[in-house]
Amino acid sequence: MSEPAGAHQWVAVDWGTSNVRAWGIGAGGEIVWSRSSDRGMGRLSAADYPAVLTELLAAAATERPAPVEVLICGMAGARQGWREAPYLEAPAALDRLLLSAVRPETDGTPFDVRILPGICQKTPGGEDVMRGEETQLLGLLALRPEFSGTVCMPGTHSKWVQLEGGRVVGFATAMTGELYEAIGSHTVIRHALGGDHAVPASEAGLEAGLEAGLGAPERLSSLLFRTRAAALLAGRQPDWCSGYLSGLLVGAEIAGYRDRIDAGPLPLVGSPRLCRLYARAVARAGGQTAVIDATEATIAGLIAARKQLGIGGAA
Amino acid sequence: MSEPAGAHQWVAVDWGTSNVRAWGIGAGGEIVWSRSSDRGMGRLSAADYPAVLTELLAAAATERPAPVEVLICGMAGARQGWREAPYLEAPAALDRLLLSAVRPETDGTPFDVRILPGICQKTPGGEDVMRGEETQLLGLLALRPEFSGTVCMPGTHSKWVQLEGGRVVGFATAMTGELYEAIGSHTVIRHALGGDHAVPASEAGLEAGLEAGLGAPERLSSLLFRTRAAALLAGRQPDWCSGYLSGLLVGAEIAGYRDRIDAGPLPLVGSPRLCRLYARAVARAGGQTAVIDATEATIAGLIAARKQLGIGGAA
Repeated sequence: MSEPAGAHQWVAVDWGTSNVRAWGIGAGGEIVWSRSSDRGMGRLSAADYPAVLTELLAAAATERPAPVEVLICGMAGARQGWREAPYLEAPAALDRLLLSAVRPETDGTPFDVRILPGICQKTPGGEDVMRGEETQLLGLLALRPEFSGTVCMPGTHSKWVQLEGGRVVGFATAMTGELYEAIGSHTVIRHALGGDHAVPASEAGLEAGLEAGLGAPERLSSLLFRTRAAALLAGRQPDWCSGYLSGLLVGAEIAGYRDRIDAGPLPLVGSPRLCRLYARAVARAGGQTAVIDATEATIAGLIAARKQLGIGGAA
Repeated sequence: MSEPAGAHQWVAVDWGTSNVRAWGIGAGGEIVWSRSSDRGMGRLSAADYPAVLTELLAAAATERPAPVEVLICGMAGARQGWREAPYLEAPAALDRLLLSAVRPETDGTPFDVRILPGICQKTPGGEDVMRGEETQLLGLLALRPEFSGTVCMPGTHSKWVQLEGGRVVGFATAMTGELYEAIGSHTVIRHALGGDHAVPASEAGLEAGLEAGLGAPERLSSLLFRTRAAALLAGRQPDWCSGYLSGLLVGAEIAGYRDRIDAGPLPLVGSPRLCRLYARAVARAGGQTAVIDATEATIAGLIAARKQLGIGGAA
């Protein structure tokens, strides 16, 4: 390789709603640097992106002659993002992501940018969307090429995906993480959490919540109120209540998809903290899990996507 | 009767979290006037109550010589209300409410005030509380003395109550109304409602939501996200999405209690608007309902409670 040690050949970017993360990728697919900022899609208008990218990649732009190749997944491709990358419709082949990427205006910056599409599902009554997870799924297949079956992707909006032969054949989103925030901050349950939805969870509370949610997911709305009543009547402290609320919502999610949990280990793609909690819930439901770090899956997916036109072969 | 026509003998008050309503009750149990204000418990500290009551009952206080007898149910008896009226513990006999009332300090105002208690349930894992509904249940029994069985009380915090022989033997709270507000205002679903969670609901949206919630209550967290996806992908308008969200939450609540719906009509105690929606959901689940207006039940309950020491017999 002709590159100096540590030099990147291109830049991989995960542009989420709240944050943006960038990795310099070397000629052998290795990560040579990483940067991040809180300039997520939620805070930007379309015209802001070139300047934000310039700031984020300031060092990268001077290290190599222009243009710097940048491949982006996530919310930068949403309608309210930089430039809309229209959804592929499920069933969708993951080896076609790059073919459907869009190239936004870069306003004279030295970047050659592509944004990968998300995937939608238009089944009446089963409408759903993902942006970013499709890239993690491609990464999962890069790490485990033969995988077919259900994948669980815990998060603010958890995804339950059916993968078959390299295609997303169907999926559903559970709003578990966002429900935790909204219920913990904006209902009477906030009093049980001591006014702070980010209070650490106790083990005992988590266990009680998992048991309740796994046992009667169809009564979620009642089981939620018990968070408040347990604080009033049984003296439960904020850490117990936080654990109960968290365990309850995750337990109910897992119970709702119990029919997808079979003998083989269920891949969990997410943050280590969330995956630990989901693994516990799946184990209580009688299943096994295999944890894949979401960041690792994202980077593997961006690397795999870049190879889809053969442009990664030059190294 | 020696009273002038239209004069009250005592004052019945329902002091809720958001509002307070008062009714002058004549010697024959008839309502001779009513007043209300938005000075609910949520906006008051304990010291505020005498002045608020004085303002609310200004005319009443001058019509008759002091003291003016006032009987209150609801959140004025909460720990954060005027004076705590400790909960009766279920199983709880509704003919003992007045015996457990408390008398708050009235600071020289011409009011002789009692506040009725709520009911709690301390079963481990089934902790729950009510304040105000116990008085409506007493009113239900005044209107239908022989009733035993399940009662559904739709509201911000819906109650599902087992009544037997004039006693509350058990109950559970579903946070349906509050979930609608929190989810419609503080999650990604607010975009589907056009930024206004109070948007009117369309019939088609309600029907779709009821069907989804009744069909798969254990997947509530996923069915919720479809509100957003249906707006993005199927062009659903805010009125459809509002109806779907409302129908989904009510349908899931009803489905969670399907085992309580049997051959006899299920009493629904609530506002006419909510009772219509719940009646529709129960009918779809194969049950029948009998609607009792919540205000009527509250007044009947306060009148019945006042008779519990025989003090109503003087008329």
